[in-house]
Amino acid sequence: MGSGIFWLAMLGLWLEDERLTLREDLPVPSPGDGEVRVSLIQAGICATDHGLVAGMYPFSGVLGHEFVGVVEEGPPDLRGQRVVGEINAVCHECVHCLGGRPRHCANRTVLGIVGRHGAFAESLVLPAENLHTVPSGVSNEEAVFVEPLAAALEILEQVSVRPGDRVLVVGDGRLGQLVAQTVALTGCDLAVSGRHAHKLRFLEERGVSTLDATAADGAGEVEAGAYDLAVECTGNETGYTAARAALRPQGTLVLKSTYPGNLSLNATMLVVDEIRVLGSRCGPFPPALRLLEQGLVDVSYLIDASFPLAQGLAAFAESARRATLKVTLHP
Amino acid sequence: MGSGIFWLAMLGLWLEDERLTLREDLPVPSPGDGEVRVSLIQAGICATDHGLVAGMYPFSGVLGHEFVGVVEEGPPDLRGQRVVGEINAVCHECVHCLGGRPRHCANRTVLGIVGRHGAFAESLVLPAENLHTVPSGVSNEEAVFVEPLAAALEILEQVSVRPGDRVLVVGDGRLGQLVAQTVALTGCDLAVSGRHAHKLRFLEERGVSTLDATAADGAGEVEAGAYDLAVECTGNETGYTAARAALRPQGTLVLKSTYPGNLSLNATMLVVDEIRVLGSRCGPFPPALRLLEQGLVDVSYLIDASFPLAQGLAAFAESARRATLKVTLHP
Repeated sequence: MGSGIFWLAMLGLWLEDERLTLREDLPVPSPGDGEVRVSLIQAGICATDHGLVAGMYPFSGVLGHEFVGVVEEGPPDLRGQRVVGEINAVCHECVHCLGGRPRHCANRTVLGIVGRHGAFAESLVLPAENLHTVPSGVSNEEAVFVEPLAAALEILEQVSVRPGDRVLVVGDGRLGQLVAQTVALTGCDLAVSGRHAHKLRFLEERGVSTLDATAADGAGEVEAGAYDLAVECTGNETGYTAARAALRPQGTLVLKSTYPGNLSLNATMLVVDEIRVLGSRCGPFPPALRLLEQGLVDVSYLIDASFPLAQGLAAFAESARRATLKVTLHP
Repeated sequence: MGSGIFWLAMLGLWLEDERLTLREDLPVPSPGDGEVRVSLIQAGICATDHGLVAGMYPFSGVLGHEFVGVVEEGPPDLRGQRVVGEINAVCHECVHCLGGRPRHCANRTVLGIVGRHGAFAESLVLPAENLHTVPSGVSNEEAVFVEPLAAALEILEQVSVRPGDRVLVVGDGRLGQLVAQTVALTGCDLAVSGRHAHKLRFLEERGVSTLDATAADGAGEVEAGAYDLAVECTGNETGYTAARAALRPQGTLVLKSTYPGNLSLNATMLVVDEIRVLGSRCGPFPPALRLLEQGLVDVSYLIDASFPLAQGLAAFAESARRATLKVTLHP
């Protein structure tokens, strides 16, 4: 880092000591063994990025993990391809990799999150095996959602949602919207509770039932003890409590967001009601690409604005506004 | 209640306003429609009983839910039978009963726990359908463990434990001992962590590996991030933290105990590691009886002392001692 050779420098958003800065002097990264360099087309700002800026866990470097780009440097069959990339770079040797859960690799680096520079820059580097070619029918504005869409699909990897199930998604933000759209594909009896009328309207326009959660307890119109599955997409304790209260005994609560600090919860009632709580993180890219290609998930309405990297700090401010769904960056 | 007719009175332990008293004036209960009256042979004191006395949730009446007895009043085919009884008396009409989870009946009463007098008295009343005849090969001292043994087996109803799995049971108390013995039957690689050398020794004598958890963090000798399944049997936050820390990513944490007050936990790491948390309560009686009849579970060593009901308060004091495993009551 810090090379002084001007023509190798690039623009990017740098996080250090919980301070995000725009830098023009970042060295263009060089791919290592098995890696490729990708030129950014578009990157998305996510709640995790805001969490990292707030110090949720320590990270120094280029931020960003949702992207679509073009392979600039790498094997000939990949060069020039438009790609998205899985964010966990793994060792293939540890007990988790060998145990069939490579996304939990003990030695992993994670794009823009753990030990690896991210996507909010003109170029990024990832292992070639992490990349997935984007079909021509999927636009850049759609492809930039593949990573969070894959994360939403992780729920269906973990839980067998039945068409007859009653499902509640708590939270009408960017993640809640993607979770709602993917869960809706099961044919289940789905409702999304949220506090933002215009975000709920997007879902209603797509045939998803919505519930007003503006009451102080976050439950609002939600029927207590009635849902087979609740997905918590708010990342706050009120959201957790509302999701928990909505569940029937032996229901399933998926935690899809991370939380600032500890969560204080009534574990006795988890035992009495035999609730299943599932932490849920990254998911599979290929089905996310398929759903976009088939037009079964609609992400076009989620982008409120796209900023050039040079205005990246303004993009972050815009993304932090409660009214915003998704803000993207481009070179 | 409060009948003055002396010959209908009986002895029992009465909980009211978080105060347990010995009463000689309790009316002998009359079975309602579909119910039978059971004379007590032996009853076991459980952590839940201590929790109720401490006000964990409000209950007034005769305490106690672990018992073996003889049917005194009821259908001819049941009269004189030695029985144990499931503790949830259910309505068969609510959404949970009709949905195949009657133990979570919305209108249930629970023997000695919710809205129904319990087993620490000379007689108790339960629906006939709740009773299971005790095979002649199972002693009273074994039969009194059927309810907690069924609760231990609920884990295997909820989780498919594979013979190759690495499993940790946190807690060497009465519940931990039963959980360890049942989980061990899967052939899994099992260890029990605990703080009481003499309780761990009981397990070692039965071929179960044990780990010293007397370190301040409750982890002690337990390898972090190494277990597929951890079962929390302590009912305290230190136990939860130790069980959580022992799990590999995508591991399963079973909460088998209830907790005083809220539990404060790192939900972000549940998400990052995609942990599955399962609340676990009552379980099936028939397999518990089968395991006892087949001699596959050994409960004989768990009873430290048996007191007559008339010395019930002394029995509670004895049961509360940390060194004690199980204290029973008899008429």
